Amino acid sequence: MQLKAVEKLMQKFANRKEQLYKQKEEGRKVFGMFCAYVPIEIILAANAIPVGLCGGKNDTVPIAEEDLPRNLCPLIKSSYGFKKAKSCPYFEASDIVIGETTCEGKKKMFELMERMVPMHIMHLPHMKDEDSLKIWIKEVEKLKELVEKETGNEITEEKLKEAIDKVNKLRELFYKLYELRKNKPVPIKGLDVLKIFQFAYLLDIDDTIEVLEDLIKELEERVKKGEGFEGKRILITGCPMVAGNTKIVELVEEVGGVVVGEESCTGTRFFENFVEGYSIEDIAKRYFKIPCACRFKNDERIENIKRLVKELDVDGVVYYTLQCCHTFNVEGTKVEEALKEEGIPIIRIETDYSESDREQLKTRLEAFIEMI
Amino acid sequence: MQLKAVEKLMQKFANRKEQLYKQKEEGRKVFGMFCAYVPIEIILAANAIPVGLCGGKNDTVPIAEEDLPRNLCPLIKSSYGFKKAKSCPYFEASDIVIGETTCEGKKKMFELMERMVPMHIMHLPHMKDEDSLKIWIKEVEKLKELVEKETGNEITEEKLKEAIDKVNKLRELFYKLYELRKNKPVPIKGLDVLKIFQFAYLLDIDDTIEVLEDLIKELEERVKKGEGFEGKRILITGCPMVAGNTKIVELVEEVGGVVVGEESCTGTRFFENFVEGYSIEDIAKRYFKIPCACRFKNDERIENIKRLVKELDVDGVVYYTLQCCHTFNVEGTKVEEALKEEGIPIIRIETDYSESDREQLKTRLEAFIEMI
Ligand code: SF4
Ligand code: SF4
Ligand code: SF4
Ligand code: SF4
Repeated sequence: MQLKAVEKLMQKFANRKEQLYKQKEEGRKVFGMFCAYVPIEIILAANAIPVGLCGGKNDTVPIAEEDLPRNLCPLIKSSYGFKKAKSCPYFEASDIVIGETTCEGKKKMFELMERMVPMHIMHLPHMKDEDSLKIWIKEVEKLKELVEKETGNEITEEKLKEAIDKVNKLRELFYKLYELRKNKPVPIKGLDVLKIFQFAYLLDIDDTIEVLEDLIKELEERVKKGEGFEGKRILITGCPMVAGNTKIVELVEEVGGVVVGEESCTGTRFFENFVEGYSIEDIAKRYFKIPCACRFKNDERIENIKRLVKELDVDGVVYYTLQCCHTFNVEGTKVEEALKEEGIPIIRIETDYSESDREQLKTRLEAFIEMI
Repeated sequence: MQLKAVEKLMQKFANRKEQLYKQKEEGRKVFGMFCAYVPIEIILAANAIPVGLCGGKNDTVPIAEEDLPRNLCPLIKSSYGFKKAKSCPYFEASDIVIGETTCEGKKKMFELMERMVPMHIMHLPHMKDEDSLKIWIKEVEKLKELVEKETGNEITEEKLKEAIDKVNKLRELFYKLYELRKNKPVPIKGLDVLKIFQFAYLLDIDDTIEVLEDLIKELEERVKKGEGFEGKRILITGCPMVAGNTKIVELVEEVGGVVVGEESCTGTRFFENFVEGYSIEDIAKRYFKIPCACRFKNDERIENIKRLVKELDVDGVVYYTLQCCHTFNVEGTKVEEALKEEGIPIIRIETDYSESDREQLKTRLEAFIEMI
């Protein structure tokens, strides 16, 4: 019972490279990025194309380890390796790459990466106070200037409004998808949703919107008919799971769980909060709110997790960390304590992109799901 | 041929706890800290006492690992463990602890630590630009307010000037020590110097100044007589080696090297650059310049290392990283490349606080020192 919308998604993804290179030939600029903090509205408003470049594959880790330490998050190494090996078509299509000061592994990796590709680094401060917000607003303004210069297209008020409306529309569809996942049985598997989030960073936004609109209709049908998936309802929270990396969701759904939500940058952190207005400042404010563990004092994230557990009627939480991701790993202690206090079962998993721990993780997840 | 000044240092250190608790009884407040960025002038100007709390021992790592991930820098875990175990007299003496947003491991650990002890976190931004400096100046002003409030002592212009002069005096003495280390044979072993830096974070500043003044005289005598240590001249660069952690310097000097300099927070980053003026802003500017790998684009550090290699006539560089310290580890690639370009031998070492890798490191360092 594959969803038609998901088939369409796969089709669109299969065609994406060709489409992207055609768009490039037509003169559109491509902006690579590594983070949910990069305000894609700015890029879209200049008729340019944002693509996510985070690496989710183990293949490019060895070449990255020629320059980067072993003890580093696989996402960072995979991303760097793709550029070094020139093996990612999205990377090769990128005219310029936007980095940011989020986690220190990425921040320092960018210092090496910028020797291979033109980069622009946005300064996201550690803190959430007013002075930090001011810096961030300036950074978004600087991004606008850069994008205008690189594309030669002026970002008019009208174009900005159009882009804001479009991305808000995308957000609204993801909110609807999450609404539908509240149902029992849940009308869609976690693995399908994960792919949608992963490809949302790569596809043309119009295509993602089209797929989501189809999907919502299909899911509404399913809900009406009472069709869907039963099983222990799992919320995933933690590091992003970018294209190429589906291990944990696969395992959860192999052993009797069904993922009904993901507090992640391939999840709620991607779409929650609308841009509430039509100025650069409004854009900056929306992104500034993203509750990433790289920020100091990130208790909103804990509140979000608790809220999602309630809203989605979650049976258990899988706290997912990529190896050596200090921010999510240390924050995990606070999340774990907060959930245990409310009697919400949680399991913490630290893994990388290799397959070597698959069996062991499966056993642990199986035990967790049986227990809850 | 133990130096008398070093004997005095050890004596003062042996008495330090008693002295500190006496100072506390007399009503002086104690400010704990974890970083070379904390401007001790502010603390001293309020007649309070700054003490470094960075942990250098393996003993407290297991208790820390109850809350913190294994994959985290041992310095962070050791520090946290000391508080959890209540086993560090300096920590227990601290009325308030100053943290900072430098590396993300510490930053996130502080979120857990502040549940055990009153903390104040200073925001050091990622970047080195003017806006970031402005934030940092404000942070130093906020520290002043906090210290005044905690101590009840006003930081007058006069007191601030006195404190600035005193810490500058200390810096001057360290500069002189480094001058003397240019000699061949070098009049002091690296292990002795390391202890001075380590204890400088713990002793009363007047005592450190006294010891250094004695030391300089003694070393000048030695130089006159042509006494000292021969061997391959080694510069250590990288993570701090805080009290309790002397492994690498010991090993280098066991296998025929002699450490003549340390580009480290237990080294040049502790004393280089004077505060050039008597305002809060002057203080902030001096600390802002510290070339720690946690900052984005830290090329001044590379220049410093190259300069130190020349000035101290260094035969080889030991690049020292604590396990999972992403910032120094990734920056190591740039440092390594820059030194290789100039034909300066470099060996990279990643280690923790355990003794298990001692033999292996010894073999590697032996081979390195033979080769250069
Ligand atoms: S987890 Fe944080 S750093 Fe990573 S993509 Fe999300 S917002 Fe960016
Ligand atoms: S998973 Fe963690 S360490 Fe890896 S890039 Fe994201 S925030 Fe950084
Ligand atoms: S290495 Fe950096 S973070 Fe650590 S004490 Fe030094 S300045 Fe602070
Ligand atoms: S050694 Fe590195 S990881 Fe450890 S506290 Fe210092 S900067 Fe942070």
